[in-house]
Amino acid sequence: MRIIIHGIGAIGGVVGAALVEQGNDVLGIARGRMLEALQSAPLRLISPGRRIEVTLPCVSHPSEIDFRSDDIVLLCVKGQDTEAALRDLRAAGMTDQPLFCLQNGTANERVAMRYFPNVHGVTVMMPATYMEPGEVITHGAPCFGLFYVGRFPNGIDAADEALQAVLDAANIKTILSEDVMQSKYGKLLMNLGNIVDALLPLEADRTGFTSRLTAEAEDVFRAAGVTWEDMGLENAQRKQFMEITDIEGVPRAGSSTRQSLSRGAGSVETDYLNGEVALLARLHGLKAPLNAALVDLAARRMAEGRSAGEMTEAELATLLG
Amino acid sequence: MRIIIHGIGAIGGVVGAALVEQGNDVLGIARGRMLEALQSAPLRLISPGRRIEVTLPCVSHPSEIDFRSDDIVLLCVKGQDTEAALRDLRAAGMTDQPLFCLQNGTANERVAMRYFPNVHGVTVMMPATYMEPGEVITHGAPCFGLFYVGRFPNGIDAADEALQAVLDAANIKTILSEDVMQSKYGKLLMNLGNIVDALLPLEADRTGFTSRLTAEAEDVFRAAGVTWEDMGLENAQRKQFMEITDIEGVPRAGSSTRQSLSRGAGSVETDYLNGEVALLARLHGLKAPLNAALVDLAARRMAEGRSAGEMTEAELATLLG
Repeated sequence: MRIIIHGIGAIGGVVGAALVEQGNDVLGIARGRMLEALQSAPLRLISPGRRIEVTLPCVSHPSEIDFRSDDIVLLCVKGQDTEAALRDLRAAGMTDQPLFCLQNGTANERVAMRYFPNVHGVTVMMPATYMEPGEVITHGAPCFGLFYVGRFPNGIDAADEALQAVLDAANIKTILSEDVMQSKYGKLLMNLGNIVDALLPLEADRTGFTSRLTAEAEDVFRAAGVTWEDMGLENAQRKQFMEITDIEGVPRAGSSTRQSLSRGAGSVETDYLNGEVALLARLHGLKAPLNAALVDLAARRMAEGRSAGEMTEAELATLLG
Repeated sequence: MRIIIHGIGAIGGVVGAALVEQGNDVLGIARGRMLEALQSAPLRLISPGRRIEVTLPCVSHPSEIDFRSDDIVLLCVKGQDTEAALRDLRAAGMTDQPLFCLQNGTANERVAMRYFPNVHGVTVMMPATYMEPGEVITHGAPCFGLFYVGRFPNGIDAADEALQAVLDAANIKTILSEDVMQSKYGKLLMNLGNIVDALLPLEADRTGFTSRLTAEAEDVFRAAGVTWEDMGLENAQRKQFMEITDIEGVPRAGSSTRQSLSRGAGSVETDYLNGEVALLARLHGLKAPLNAALVDLAARRMAEGRSAGEMTEAELATLLG
């Protein structure tokens, strides 16, 4: 089995490094400064208690890959880049190999299934950071992360079991799930504060805002008949396998949305996080004004070229009413 | 009310010309050779019994528009261009103005609702052609076309009624529908042969292939609980308002997919037509091998830069088994 990782950012980088260290056949698809860094130096993975360096072979585009029947593909790009990635993979010759979406939000699997028949969801619980090219960090311990894996829209098959085996061996605790989207909806609730985290200064108090966003989303989920698994700090498997742990001298860089803004990535995932709640509300004749307002705000701030932490709590409170 | 038409191709062109002729305030968003043509000459609309020429003001991109609260937007791009168009409209300042999807397939409305709260579906029955910049043709008579209009996912509101009034006055018969997606699913069945039409020479017999695609799709719809309205030649409203009628010296150019291939448009809509059937099948644990095979075939032929009519009936029969 060859493991192709499309998107070497925080998640793709930690997963890639951990898999390579265990001797797996891994090929990354990277871009920009990360690609440049990995073409001339190893990939460094920093975790609580351990630093490793591995050589992760990378290409810049799927078209450079001769796809094989024993490939699996881990999709680690952000939601706004999913459809382009899928079209590139198909044009490059990928057909019915298993495609795993290691992505936040709940929209990617459905988009993928238009292009490919063999789609799987992965709920990623991993406090990972990518700020410096060539280096990724996870603050998860004892395991680097905790993943839930299953076939989309439901079920478990041999491909899920094969991925579980290699991830478990690479210190990423992996649980098979007959209904993986339930944990993805639970994780989505955890990601609704990403944009708040990105907008406010590091020292600001986010809890009031995020709890309002989460409460609004839970109301929408209930009205829409969406069920979810609690993926918060009270989740028993999180407590057992993966807790957020300090690393001396290595502060956390905040949510993935904050990291995108800080790195100047040019786009954020808010349309597929808070935007998923707004969409679900509209599909069911409901309203989700707080989540919808943050989607619009994020789009406006990106268009204005704003960076992370440039909004005050008072400004955000006024905007959300 | 100002009517912004995003995408001046066959459908957007006929609708735009008909609306301008009736004195409506219309603004087009066009590209490429069509934009160039309309910047220096009128738009010609050819129909059975009548030729008109009108001046259709056009811009090249939504960012050139100052959106107003009395705007409505008619989205007339192909499915593969929908998401980019929506992001551009939002970045240009569009917020909660009514957005009407005059598009084939059933995916566009859901994509639009992630970005905008006020989304409407329009089922377009209009045998329209765009082959020459500056000229569009409809073979529909007595009306240029027959549209079903309603709010997405269902309902009828004042914006639907306003659009109905201007379209009816412009010789496009418009019927309000409480459940517009039913007619869109019916129209989707009519579009499954588009790619067959595009692949085969003009003189080839398409009926055997298209009836197999349609039968497969109907089985998937039934198993998935999708209901649809018959939009075929037996549809009573079609017979009454819009029949395909010869125009002397103006042959029909075939399906929109064939027109895309013939014009060298660079992409086809098959992912959102036959691909919608494949997606729906996969979401419900079913298979739609014929429609899925044509999706893959279309993608491969586009990647190879093939034009319309380059495949024989025998080759297609072998491929579909």
